[in-house]
Amino acid sequence: MTRRLRLGQVGGGEGAFIGEVHRIASRIDNRFELVAGAFSATPRKARASAEALGVSADRAYDDFRMMAEREAARPDGIDAVSIVTPNHMHYPVAREFLRHGIHVICDKPLTSDLEDARRLAAIARTAGDEAGTRFFVTYNYSAYPLIRQAREMVAKGDLGEIRVIQVEYAQGWLASPVEREGLKQAEWRTDPKRSGDGGAIGDIGTHAFHLAGYVTGLEAEALAADLHRFGPGRALDDNAHVLLRYSGGARGVLWCSQVAVGAENGLRLRVFGDRGGLVWAQESPNEMFFAPLGGAEQRITRNGAGFAAGPIVSARLPAGHPEGYLEGFGALYAGIADVLSGQDAGQADHLPGIADGLRGMEFINAAIESGKAGAAWIGF
Amino acid sequence: MTRRLRLGQVGGGEGAFIGEVHRIASRIDNRFELVAGAFSATPRKARASAEALGVSADRAYDDFRMMAEREAARPDGIDAVSIVTPNHMHYPVAREFLRHGIHVICDKPLTSDLEDARRLAAIARTAGDEAGTRFFVTYNYSAYPLIRQAREMVAKGDLGEIRVIQVEYAQGWLASPVEREGLKQAEWRTDPKRSGDGGAIGDIGTHAFHLAGYVTGLEAEALAADLHRFGPGRALDDNAHVLLRYSGGARGVLWCSQVAVGAENGLRLRVFGDRGGLVWAQESPNEMFFAPLGGAEQRITRNGAGFAAGPIVSARLPAGHPEGYLEGFGALYAGIADVLSGQDAGQADHLPGIADGLRGMEFINAAIESGKAGAAWIGF
Amino acid sequence: MTRRLRLGQVGGGEGAFIGEVHRIASRIDNRFELVAGAFSATPRKARASAEALGVSADRAYDDFRMMAEREAARPDGIDAVSIVTPNHMHYPVAREFLRHGIHVICDKPLTSDLEDARRLAAIARTAGDEAGTRFFVTYNYSAYPLIRQAREMVAKGDLGEIRVIQVEYAQGWLASPVEREGLKQAEWRTDPKRSGDGGAIGDIGTHAFHLAGYVTGLEAEALAADLHRFGPGRALDDNAHVLLRYSGGARGVLWCSQVAVGAENGLRLRVFGDRGGLVWAQESPNEMFFAPLGGAEQRITRNGAGFAAGPIVSARLPAGHPEGYLEGFGALYAGIADVLSGQDAGQADHLPGIADGLRGMEFINAAIESGKAGAAWIGF
Amino acid sequence: MTRRLRLGQVGGGEGAFIGEVHRIASRIDNRFELVAGAFSATPRKARASAEALGVSADRAYDDFRMMAEREAARPDGIDAVSIVTPNHMHYPVAREFLRHGIHVICDKPLTSDLEDARRLAAIARTAGDEAGTRFFVTYNYSAYPLIRQAREMVAKGDLGEIRVIQVEYAQGWLASPVEREGLKQAEWRTDPKRSGDGGAIGDIGTHAFHLAGYVTGLEAEALAADLHRFGPGRALDDNAHVLLRYSGGARGVLWCSQVAVGAENGLRLRVFGDRGGLVWAQESPNEMFFAPLGGAEQRITRNGAGFAAGPIVSARLPAGHPEGYLEGFGALYAGIADVLSGQDAGQADHLPGIADGLRGMEFINAAIESGKAGAAWIGF
Repeated sequence: MTRRLRLGQVGGGEGAFIGEVHRIASRIDNRFELVAGAFSATPRKARASAEALGVSADRAYDDFRMMAEREAARPDGIDAVSIVTPNHMHYPVAREFLRHGIHVICDKPLTSDLEDARRLAAIARTAGDEAGTRFFVTYNYSAYPLIRQAREMVAKGDLGEIRVIQVEYAQGWLASPVEREGLKQAEWRTDPKRSGDGGAIGDIGTHAFHLAGYVTGLEAEALAADLHRFGPGRALDDNAHVLLRYSGGARGVLWCSQVAVGAENGLRLRVFGDRGGLVWAQESPNEMFFAPLGGAEQRITRNGAGFAAGPIVSARLPAGHPEGYLEGFGALYAGIADVLSGQDAGQADHLPGIADGLRGMEFINAAIESGKAGAAWIGF
Repeated sequence: MTRRLRLGQVGGGEGAFIGEVHRIASRIDNRFELVAGAFSATPRKARASAEALGVSADRAYDDFRMMAEREAARPDGIDAVSIVTPNHMHYPVAREFLRHGIHVICDKPLTSDLEDARRLAAIARTAGDEAGTRFFVTYNYSAYPLIRQAREMVAKGDLGEIRVIQVEYAQGWLASPVEREGLKQAEWRTDPKRSGDGGAIGDIGTHAFHLAGYVTGLEAEALAADLHRFGPGRALDDNAHVLLRYSGGARGVLWCSQVAVGAENGLRLRVFGDRGGLVWAQESPNEMFFAPLGGAEQRITRNGAGFAAGPIVSARLPAGHPEGYLEGFGALYAGIADVLSGQDAGQADHLPGIADGLRGMEFINAAIESGKAGAAWIGF
Repeated sequence: MTRRLRLGQVGGGEGAFIGEVHRIASRIDNRFELVAGAFSATPRKARASAEALGVSADRAYDDFRMMAEREAARPDGIDAVSIVTPNHMHYPVAREFLRHGIHVICDKPLTSDLEDARRLAAIARTAGDEAGTRFFVTYNYSAYPLIRQAREMVAKGDLGEIRVIQVEYAQGWLASPVEREGLKQAEWRTDPKRSGDGGAIGDIGTHAFHLAGYVTGLEAEALAADLHRFGPGRALDDNAHVLLRYSGGARGVLWCSQVAVGAENGLRLRVFGDRGGLVWAQESPNEMFFAPLGGAEQRITRNGAGFAAGPIVSARLPAGHPEGYLEGFGALYAGIADVLSGQDAGQADHLPGIADGLRGMEFINAAIESGKAGAAWIGF
Repeated sequence: MTRRLRLGQVGGGEGAFIGEVHRIASRIDNRFELVAGAFSATPRKARASAEALGVSADRAYDDFRMMAEREAARPDGIDAVSIVTPNHMHYPVAREFLRHGIHVICDKPLTSDLEDARRLAAIARTAGDEAGTRFFVTYNYSAYPLIRQAREMVAKGDLGEIRVIQVEYAQGWLASPVEREGLKQAEWRTDPKRSGDGGAIGDIGTHAFHLAGYVTGLEAEALAADLHRFGPGRALDDNAHVLLRYSGGARGVLWCSQVAVGAENGLRLRVFGDRGGLVWAQESPNEMFFAPLGGAEQRITRNGAGFAAGPIVSARLPAGHPEGYLEGFGALYAGIADVLSGQDAGQADHLPGIADGLRGMEFINAAIESGKAGAAWIGF
């Protein structure tokens, strides 16, 4: 057996959502073992979480700095840390582990503001160049097998020159002011102090933005964003319409919303080139529709006929046995394990890294600026 | 039997598409009989078309002015005229018939430019006020039974206050420059002389714009439109992304495209309020999805459980026997017959009229202006 | 203009459903004009219906025998009669018109029992052989454009040798005993005197049976049918499961039900051969899914890419503008008009005729026999 | 942390499919740790597999009898064994571990013939009664959250009295004789020596049969099965049509096929009662459609509005983030962990056990008998 990588986690204590997702994702392919954590800044909670997770008491920290220091000093110290704190803590935590030569797997968005993001990017690049320490951002949707195939199809020219990109991420769970009713997930997401200046645009818009860029390989050059707050008394945007112009002349619209009643996690991407079009939706991730110019639309299924598993596309199950969100997230962790174990096989070019994290922050920042200026065009 | 109305037609000669659609629509409920026509300005073609359509030779005209004059003079002259010429002829033809007191059923867009539209609107209003002569514009999608139900649901408050409107009309048939390959439908639609200044925005964008307004009852106040021509050498837009702001604070995006490979007639409307959301797609018009806040999404089918046939909503077939485009178009004609026969039953408020036609032209004009100004915001 | 054919109708008076469907179908392509009728055996209703339908008083009959005789005697007598009475009247009415040399368009099932069907078949064959008088049965679903394409694909070998046929027609409208609550459509359909011995199996099972045979070109040789009455006090089957064995070794299941709550007109056909499979559903008739062995599933749309309009496949509208039930029914009438006008173009081989009608009755009869024998196998 | 259960595995060595599925399922919720295994009867492969899986050399066995004996003797011996061998080995392996008081998690079908199944059932019941040793069969589809909800809805009476059950499991991967082309999965599944007398009926038909019974709570009483072999030279059925009669009068059809070209893992269940109907498909497992009598059909999503998580229904992710096959399988393992840890919470009544395994074998046996008798009815 290739040695399982030793993983630590900062954040993700009792009741957290995304921390458990990272843990399952790390476990699903058996490439990591969780051995240390600063699951909470509250000592009692940190210990309880560690115990519940089977992390030994001596590696259950309540201070991420101490964790970084001690783990770096152990011969069996963690190989990588998973950062799943609220956004505003991403920067200080990541910085600390990078400085100790520990690889970082950071949830998105990269930070809570662009300044932090730029600083962190500089640090991460230095850490990478000087010590080979890697930095990953979990834009997990990009690791769905059919999304990776879509990227390969675009790169191969199956769609021809890309013209139009329609991407959306619609949710409805903040249609009512549930943050006032004690829903924790809603509280911090609508709180500028913990989430930064972006609401929907930061929480889900960045996912959509990254996905469009990942699949098409195009760079966004300018945007005009109409941000709005529909929830009464809400401080951050809960709906955003963004016009986009891409390098090479492609045009796009990005819509993200948390007030689209009936929508759950409606992340959907449509890409149209002069030779073909494709459609994929996250809620039904095991199928993709490809229409070649002049031909009938094809339904391509994960591992089915028409699925072209290449080095970066993996799938665990035969066609028709659905893989879901956790398997997609797990593919990110498996790819990270490959890279960190030196079995790269082309993964490194496909795993979201610091540049993607920074670009996402530039997107959020530009959208907010444009929104404040009445949806004026802004280059970024 | 209520007397069938006597119908004439201008345009729609051999090989035309929309002319035949109007004729089938007029025939489907047996409320009209086609008795006269100026199907072509070429005498030979006009006669041949009339004969093929069973119109007697003495009422087959090659000059619409003569037709208006003579039909107005006959005791059994036509009650209404259906205008299905290229867009630039709508104005002179409609004017002529209105002046002779003959009701007009005009295809959309109203005219080829805003000036004509304003003149025609003035004439139509006068004709209505002074002589009771009616003017209808065939925004046919608004007559689909479930669209009419959607309008009623919004009006009743089932969706609460409307917040977000996503409307799109995606086609892919102009992805390649087929207008250079002799495809007639493509030739005139990409020719500014016959279509006016709008390409996709005029041909299909107006449909989407009207549908959104019809269902929500909201007025658009401003837009920012990113219009683009992807087809090589094309003079008119074939893709448009339009941000919209509606009275009352709702925000919307309208996307129309003729280069979305794989799309056929992908007119789709999604409306989200603070109490519910609904989704409808023209290609599957016998079902609509309604998600009440906090409840499971419901599939409402035409004439099925949950279908609330009111005075303006009609459906000929039981649930599960699909009605299509022609039945929807036919519902418009049937409603017009009701109104012209004095059996209104509330139809008049729902049939698209001169104001809708003019508004559509204002929309096209504003979108083009905004597009020229780099997608700047324009009130309209 | 090719002369419109003169059509008469027996049955279909006020309030009837299928009579109006036939009339719209005859009108949609403008190939027929309704000029005579015995719309009811009640003189007052017959006259009122005629008037409402624009049929002149002298051709409004209350006796179908008189109608056949007089129309046959007129120089401008009807070319064809549409029979839309309850099932038990099909035989005597059809016989009468055939004897007078008038073409017959008869609703399905052919008759209410097999004896009548055999007698009628003999008469129709003689009338055809001796006088060229034609007989058509309106298995309307077989005229949907994509169904006709499916038949052509099977005939061409696109699916290879056919192995498995799954066909079903599920409705839910008789889940409750609505026949006791005054619903007329339910009353006669659950009454053996008016419908014959078959309930669901006769009303909708025959449609499914015909469709499977039409598309595959295979002959059913034996069946085992489990018929059941779920509605309290119901005399006829409202659910049937039928195992089928076809010539050449194909196996099938036919399921028809009137108690499948939630189903509307769920007629669905799936055919699998050794080289491909296809799926089509009546409620979404403008698309068909074809999976070639080893390839991705293709979505073939009416008039879209992959649609191979041949001589027998017609479609009025471009892809994406849905045609529905009435257009499909209308295609049957248009084909009949072609045949009767001598413009056959291969239609005659595809229009359901007396043999199909008789075969349907043999199917019903065999299913009932099998059902009585505890779902034993019966050759037919 | 509740102690993770110690798991062993028999079978599942390099290249096996279902063994890895069991392992991921056991890992996903972190309730088991794999510590021992007899992954292969070939010593070299057994060792290599153990090493690849992180199982220490001293607990890597090449003889399942030795494994049972030694693990039973260790103070830290395995709590449970996962049996993922070919079918004909299930009986001897399971017997051995039961005798040593080790809980058994056995893949389906229970055994390769009914005799073994009856013997094993007797042993398992005795082991349960005398030693509290548990036996589970991995009918994994029954653990999908919405399937568990469906069972609860039926039990609560939401569908009323059940009338019709349509269940199918369609695959197309054996349409061609791929077992002759070296496809291992196909080789053993088409070989009576390793699979037993059932082909499709045993491999996938049993899943469908169990699912129908699990959701409806009804007992099948008789069947008539038309089994067929379409693949050239194939010894076992690759398509089966089965009529079913259930206690209480419900009727059903079960269709399973391995030659339905285009189908992947098309397990679909439809249940109709006198008060409602529901539809669920395994390939889209995060949604279920429920039609109440007289109401609009509702789309119920996992963890969405209308989802009634009860004690036996668990779901890890919010609505709209799809869970798939592995999560469903994992729910079975998590439930087993609950039961074995004494945290039952009602799980025990819902986890498939020895009785379900035996019933599945009775179903296969009856279907084969019926098939041989020309699809005659057989009570079972």
